Amino acid sequence: AYAQSSVTIYGTLDAGISKLTGGTTSVGKRDNNKLGFKGVEDLGSGLSALFQLEIRYEPDTGTIENTSGANSRPLFQGQSRVGLQGDFGTVRLGRGLTAFQETSTQFEPWSGMPAVAGYQTDLQVAGYTTDPMSPVGNSRNRFSNAVFYNSPVVGGIFQVNLTVQAKEANNNPAIVGKGTAAAPQFPANSAPTTTPYSLSATAINGPLGVYGAYEKNAIQSKIWSVGAFYKAMPELKLMGSYQSQDQTENVTINPKTKAWLVGANYTVGAGLVRLGYGQKDPDNVLNSPAIAKTKQVSIGYDYNLSPRTYLYIDASNKKATTTANFYSLGIHHNF
Amino acid sequence: AYAQSSVTIYGTLDAGISKLTGGTTSVGKRDNNKLGFKGVEDLGSGLSALFQLEIRYEPDTGTIENTSGANSRPLFQGQSRVGLQGDFGTVRLGRGLTAFQETSTQFEPWSGMPAVAGYQTDLQVAGYTTDPMSPVGNSRNRFSNAVFYNSPVVGGIFQVNLTVQAKEANNNPAIVGKGTAAAPQFPANSAPTTTPYSLSATAINGPLGVYGAYEKNAIQSKIWSVGAFYKAMPELKLMGSYQSQDQTENVTINPKTKAWLVGANYTVGAGLVRLGYGQKDPDNVLNSPAIAKTKQVSIGYDYNLSPRTYLYIDASNKKATTTANFYSLGIHHNF
Amino acid sequence: AYAQSSVTIYGTLDAGISKLTGGTTSVGKRDNNKLGFKGVEDLGSGLSALFQLEIRYEPDTGTIENTSGANSRPLFQGQSRVGLQGDFGTVRLGRGLTAFQETSTQFEPWSGMPAVAGYQTDLQVAGYTTDPMSPVGNSRNRFSNAVFYNSPVVGGIFQVNLTVQAKEANNNPAIVGKGTAAAPQFPANSAPTTTPYSLSATAINGPLGVYGAYEKNAIQSKIWSVGAFYKAMPELKLMGSYQSQDQTENVTINPKTKAWLVGANYTVGAGLVRLGYGQKDPDNVLNSPAIAKTKQVSIGYDYNLSPRTYLYIDASNKKATTTANFYSLGIHHNF
Repeated sequence: AYAQSSVTIYGTLDAGISKLTGGTTSVGKRDNNKLGFKGVEDLGSGLSALFQLEIRYEPDTGTIENTSGANSRPLFQGQSRVGLQGDFGTVRLGRGLTAFQETSTQFEPWSGMPAVAGYQTDLQVAGYTTDPMSPVGNSRNRFSNAVFYNSPVVGGIFQVNLTVQAKEANNNPAIVGKGTAAAPQFPANSAPTTTPYSLSATAINGPLGVYGAYEKNAIQSKIWSVGAFYKAMPELKLMGSYQSQDQTENVTINPKTKAWLVGANYTVGAGLVRLGYGQKDPDNVLNSPAIAKTKQVSIGYDYNLSPRTYLYIDASNKKATTTANFYSLGIHHNF
Repeated sequence: AYAQSSVTIYGTLDAGISKLTGGTTSVGKRDNNKLGFKGVEDLGSGLSALFQLEIRYEPDTGTIENTSGANSRPLFQGQSRVGLQGDFGTVRLGRGLTAFQETSTQFEPWSGMPAVAGYQTDLQVAGYTTDPMSPVGNSRNRFSNAVFYNSPVVGGIFQVNLTVQAKEANNNPAIVGKGTAAAPQFPANSAPTTTPYSLSATAINGPLGVYGAYEKNAIQSKIWSVGAFYKAMPELKLMGSYQSQDQTENVTINPKTKAWLVGANYTVGAGLVRLGYGQKDPDNVLNSPAIAKTKQVSIGYDYNLSPRTYLYIDASNKKATTTANFYSLGIHHNF
Repeated sequence: AYAQSSVTIYGTLDAGISKLTGGTTSVGKRDNNKLGFKGVEDLGSGLSALFQLEIRYEPDTGTIENTSGANSRPLFQGQSRVGLQGDFGTVRLGRGLTAFQETSTQFEPWSGMPAVAGYQTDLQVAGYTTDPMSPVGNSRNRFSNAVFYNSPVVGGIFQVNLTVQAKEANNNPAIVGKGTAAAPQFPANSAPTTTPYSLSATAINGPLGVYGAYEKNAIQSKIWSVGAFYKAMPELKLMGSYQSQDQTENVTINPKTKAWLVGANYTVGAGLVRLGYGQKDPDNVLNSPAIAKTKQVSIGYDYNLSPRTYLYIDASNKKATTTANFYSLGIHHNF
């Protein structure tokens, strides 16, 4: 029998067949693929210790997420965090999604999944990168070397979240920024000059939820976002958000980008219909023809075989400097 | 207590001491070393969802299998697959052994283990490589980006298996083939021109089992194989196979290779004796003295300490352009 | 329900905030971070089979321990071992701490943790490296390709331990040693010329424990050490050790290094106070001003929130060619 009573193993295996305009029919994914280990220890007096370690991998090749030569992501790309939970909220140390990134996933019609048909990785964050001073191949939405705070949900409604990153160098490649290749604005393996941080606040009351979020990264890019969802009927969740990125500290041309999106989730029997439309607008003050507004419309359908397993189909049309259609069909299994 | 009821952890740790002619006494392995996570979910109506993730590692150094600098194999080298099982059979997506490779292991006297004394990795497949268009260091017997189908066992006897790989580029190094170093036949990170696939069929009835298998890979090499086993007595399993590889699409000289082998497994008390003899014959139409027929004779013995653990000893003599003797002694533990 | 009864998952997640003189405030660790899988199988007649696989990782970034580009440590850096246990003791094969290194951790006031405030990685082993002929980035205290023997504890008091490494090449970078960059004493990927081994013996009786240990590595460096602990009161454990490293076979200047340290662990309620003082002395026969004696004084405090979780604070002053103060504050959670 198991000697310990403290570890929960969990995960997701999501794989499908997809086709992008101009590409080959390929095996890929709609959601992140996870294998995680977590636990909560009751310390008494309302205090708990908690830990979580989460592997991310590619289901089609079996590699750690985003592996390309030596530049794979961390083994525990999803998160590696330990901390305490109590009346004061939750404090954790390590690596994980920032407050901004985690909150925004709740207001996105593909549930924050990195699906091609979804809006999270491009429009929901207006092209913003949370951790530019991380190694090649790292993900765009997490802080390493960070402290994470989540408040309790006050009155069952209000919560604030804060993530602060230490000003440690973390093997970033050189970033030219406003410098030159010979004298990049941010040399390789340099430390942030000011402390990167991320803030979000949510208010969720009955069918209505709203949020506001702000983040500043290691190269002084800034983003803010506001959004809301509304459950018009028990079967229907409507949502929308607006976001604005400011890269004036590290980009010379077109440093500002705005994006917005609206979406809906509609439950029909064992199925869930996902709908979305959104735009991303670079400021493009120079009217460069190479810089285009992005417009994306997507529809998806999940068919639940059980509370843990569903089949899905997605279709999406994305116009930017070129136009691409995307189709996918797959299976999503939680364990 | 564990919150979930869905994950089985399993694995193998096999380590031994071995000596090859001309080499030093070293710590190595006879079998693949595995740490896996798998589960089956009953969806009702005879339908199940299933997933499996399998780490492969080297027991002597603790590294991911075949690690050399940046060129280690995928974390889930063994397999990463998800799918559905029902009356129609099993359909899975992801990475795993092809139909050809998986079936052939049942007709090999070392149970398909990659043991030096065994026949699987060289003679059982006539030197064939399933996935030449994969990254440096990858294994030779799996498809990534694939769909796997296994039929039900019809009448308790017949089964067919099919694996089809998407025509995705997967970071292969350039393969010169019939080209030149400057203009290789298959450039780095190129996509297969035709769809790679693998087929096998088995008929197992009482003491007798036969199979046939065919596979074509991403660079148009082909292999076919037939084989049989026969349980002459409850304690004695005899087996043999014949295989033929055709590399005419990508090799200029000696593109054809044939191999055959015979073997026996004999149970004596808590022990199992393994015997094998086989040959691999390149066509060698140019009579090059550098190209030799391979002849291998091997004997092994397993001593079962329990249903999960055994000690083993192997001895082997292999003649090719040079002759090498191999001895090993080790422990094999399943968990 | 879980199908197997054989695997225990265990681990440690330790993360804290620390500050070293001249450095930035950073997120780091005091202890090794582990995620392990182990099991023991009863084979009857007093015999057991046992296996253990242990991942090591960095909690602040989620990477495998010591990752830097392609040079991360093995996935199972902590250990990968399989073997048998019986009246004769324990015999294991694979990778793990050597007898010398494992024994010495019991006589170190930070419990052998690699804490900056602790003494294990520098003074407790006099700067010695167990496995210099391993890949770049590997750890300094383990043998790969080894056989591990631990005797039973004779009379409840005496134990001897022996580790022997096979003379296998294991992808070491070239080591100049007494050669030149063009003709290094130990070329890349070379094999040890004599068998590396490690020996230790302990006698623990009531409040008193003593040990002696000796090790010779793949490049013929040697180290010996003796030490003792004494539990003066149930709450107070005093300890000390002396060690001497001899690198005359591979270093031209200052090949000999001696070190000693004394320490105490004092339990106060739910707290544990750690104290230590130690010195490391290179022979420095040439009186080079660049080579200095190391003097380190440290104090630490653990506050136990439960048997599995504690908070800690460390402070340390280390004088060598420069002087550095170190402070850390963190949480240590076992699961």
